Amino acid sequence: MNELRIDGKRLWDSLMELARIGATEKGGVKRLALTDLDRQGRDLVVRWGREAGLAVTVDQIGNVFMRREGRNRALPPVVTGSHIDTQPTGGKFDGNYGVLAGLEVVRTLNDLRIQTEAPLEVAFWTNEEGSRFVPVMMGSGVFCGAFSLETAYAARDTEGKTVGEELERIGYRGEEVPGRHPIGAYFETHIEQGPVLEDAGRVIGVVPAVMGLSWYDCTVNGMEAHAGPTPMGLRRDALQVATVIMQEVVRIANRYPPYGRGTVGMVQVFPNSRNVIPGQVKFSIDLRNVSDALLNTMHEEMLAFVARTRSESGLAIEVERVSYYPPCPFHPDCVNAVRAATEKLGYSTMDVVSGAGHDAIYAARVAPSGMIFVPCKDGISHNEIEDARPDHLEAGCNVLLHAMLERAGIAS
Amino acid sequence: MNELRIDGKRLWDSLMELARIGATEKGGVKRLALTDLDRQGRDLVVRWGREAGLAVTVDQIGNVFMRREGRNRALPPVVTGSHIDTQPTGGKFDGNYGVLAGLEVVRTLNDLRIQTEAPLEVAFWTNEEGSRFVPVMMGSGVFCGAFSLETAYAARDTEGKTVGEELERIGYRGEEVPGRHPIGAYFETHIEQGPVLEDAGRVIGVVPAVMGLSWYDCTVNGMEAHAGPTPMGLRRDALQVATVIMQEVVRIANRYPPYGRGTVGMVQVFPNSRNVIPGQVKFSIDLRNVSDALLNTMHEEMLAFVARTRSESGLAIEVERVSYYPPCPFHPDCVNAVRAATEKLGYSTMDVVSGAGHDAIYAARVAPSGMIFVPCKDGISHNEIEDARPDHLEAGCNVLLHAMLERAGIAS
Repeated sequence: MNELRIDGKRLWDSLMELARIGATEKGGVKRLALTDLDRQGRDLVVRWGREAGLAVTVDQIGNVFMRREGRNRALPPVVTGSHIDTQPTGGKFDGNYGVLAGLEVVRTLNDLRIQTEAPLEVAFWTNEEGSRFVPVMMGSGVFCGAFSLETAYAARDTEGKTVGEELERIGYRGEEVPGRHPIGAYFETHIEQGPVLEDAGRVIGVVPAVMGLSWYDCTVNGMEAHAGPTPMGLRRDALQVATVIMQEVVRIANRYPPYGRGTVGMVQVFPNSRNVIPGQVKFSIDLRNVSDALLNTMHEEMLAFVARTRSESGLAIEVERVSYYPPCPFHPDCVNAVRAATEKLGYSTMDVVSGAGHDAIYAARVAPSGMIFVPCKDGISHNEIEDARPDHLEAGCNVLLHAMLERAGIAS
Repeated sequence: MNELRIDGKRLWDSLMELARIGATEKGGVKRLALTDLDRQGRDLVVRWGREAGLAVTVDQIGNVFMRREGRNRALPPVVTGSHIDTQPTGGKFDGNYGVLAGLEVVRTLNDLRIQTEAPLEVAFWTNEEGSRFVPVMMGSGVFCGAFSLETAYAARDTEGKTVGEELERIGYRGEEVPGRHPIGAYFETHIEQGPVLEDAGRVIGVVPAVMGLSWYDCTVNGMEAHAGPTPMGLRRDALQVATVIMQEVVRIANRYPPYGRGTVGMVQVFPNSRNVIPGQVKFSIDLRNVSDALLNTMHEEMLAFVARTRSESGLAIEVERVSYYPPCPFHPDCVNAVRAATEKLGYSTMDVVSGAGHDAIYAARVAPSGMIFVPCKDGISHNEIEDARPDHLEAGCNVLLHAMLERAGIAS
């Protein structure tokens, strides 16, 4: 079966056809969760699934599972999937690739009349992006019990519409209780959304884990004063003290390579006037690493540095942790299945720890899971200029095919 | 004449009465230039002037001169003044003190039936604050020819109303051509608007000069990218590079004490999202010092540092000068008159170079000028909690009295 390959052109054509729904002028896609456009996208993918002979189930949070029966119906299915909702200025590939790669695997097996031992399923999860409704990764989060269906239903967009109402309106509030759906193993193909594979010139990223992340809000309180009349020695300049911490955030990350990440993405200066010494600066801190131990060390070093800066500067500095997602190692069986398929197919490869969240994190709470990354142009995602090469997308789909077959088994 | 003193209580009472017009709940004043409240304030001060026997002239930009005749009418008057317009959330003392201190000098001389050799005048200049209409220091700027009457008339507030219309409406568009009014010498008393006197425990600031200032807009262009998937080594983090420059701005100022000032007051981060590495950061730079030579050295060092940072970081960094006001040394005769009066009266004193702009800067272009500073609480100004001590305000007014008498001469 080593010679099995998917149809790269068919995969690409499906991606381009789905991308027409919500297409933006700049070549991206705007198809926010539970909008009319999301319904059109869902309807198209479901139609494609039915045309490929798949049986469709929708659960109460709108997650869709499309099943290709196996020889042994009692086995839990090998599932692949991702999401088809997008960012407001999103691209054609984020999420959509993972769903359509699963569909292409099924179409290929149909063409070749190959039956698997375990059933296969192609899933798409509701509202992964979290752009219209928070929390993010909503469908998979409810599925794995990270938060309740009621919490998800009550989430409102900026116009006051709820997830529950909007699911009903677009016809995707299903019957099945989320989480009752058995999963034997879960794979998700995705564009990397980072520059690592492209920079290293590799085609397939084997994903051993998703980084944990710790988010903080930091506030430095100084003394607002006129820029002219206030001598340097009498200032309590909140921005100057804040920049010292901002630089340390990066140094902390650099001390824990290769997966340490430290980012200050958001800054607010008060009163933010050209000739006024800032009296207060608020900024975000984002720390990530691959293990709880490393992330905790970074956390402790950051707190210690803030304490030292507080005492050295004499300014009031507050730092509060506002979010924490633990690192998520993927299951060795699934990681190895991806690695073995990649090697068998002869693609250049490397391990890439995911820095971004994916539905696979929540799937991993209920089933052995793994991910397959392919390069995206310049590492850019969540952007209308997001791009990926057809041959890379084809390669990732071939790896998915062989990994799923390895887990599901071919009926003899 | 050494025993002459003004009436501190009368000065304070006048300040408090004027502060009722536009009084805010938090104890400040909101009396924006050329509003109905400004008219009420002007009318009150003019009424007080007329009650003190002063002859009132209004020029075409609304500057008001209130004259107490001297024995020799041919001599140019010794003028004192400031402004009575305020910031939107201004205090009771900024500007108002300088005008009412002049009025108190006149009232005192009236009480004591002292005639001066040269005439004395109390002036208030239109729209010093620039909060409603730009440019700032508008009345004194037109008076000294820094910009034209037509430019000032055409300035619009956010509702589209012009200075010309509003002057007409409130009845303060006078006949006299700005600048045609002779000035023999000009003194301005003002709260310091900084913490230097309070910190040093001195009562009177002799002001040898006003600092020059150089304003810049700086833009650092990096590469926007996801905080998670982008390894530290592949980042082009605009904020981290910007913070290096922000810190250097302060170091440059510290290299040129005691009057070097370096401030970053305004920062904008794009896209300013918690989990996105900043792709662009814009910020302001404010450099000040007391001489052109020092300010130019700071300017050159800043540009050289930006160039070095550009080449070391590889990021595109633009820096553009958007404003320049040269340092303004005051006339030795006026500075010495203030210093001599202070010493004669026995007040504790020190030299304080003004870091903020004042009408006296423009007055200095047409006549020998000087300023007198008194402490303000915590150095806070342009704020409703702006405060000053009655005994300090009285001391500054006594210095003004003696400095004006020294310049005008007492008719024998």
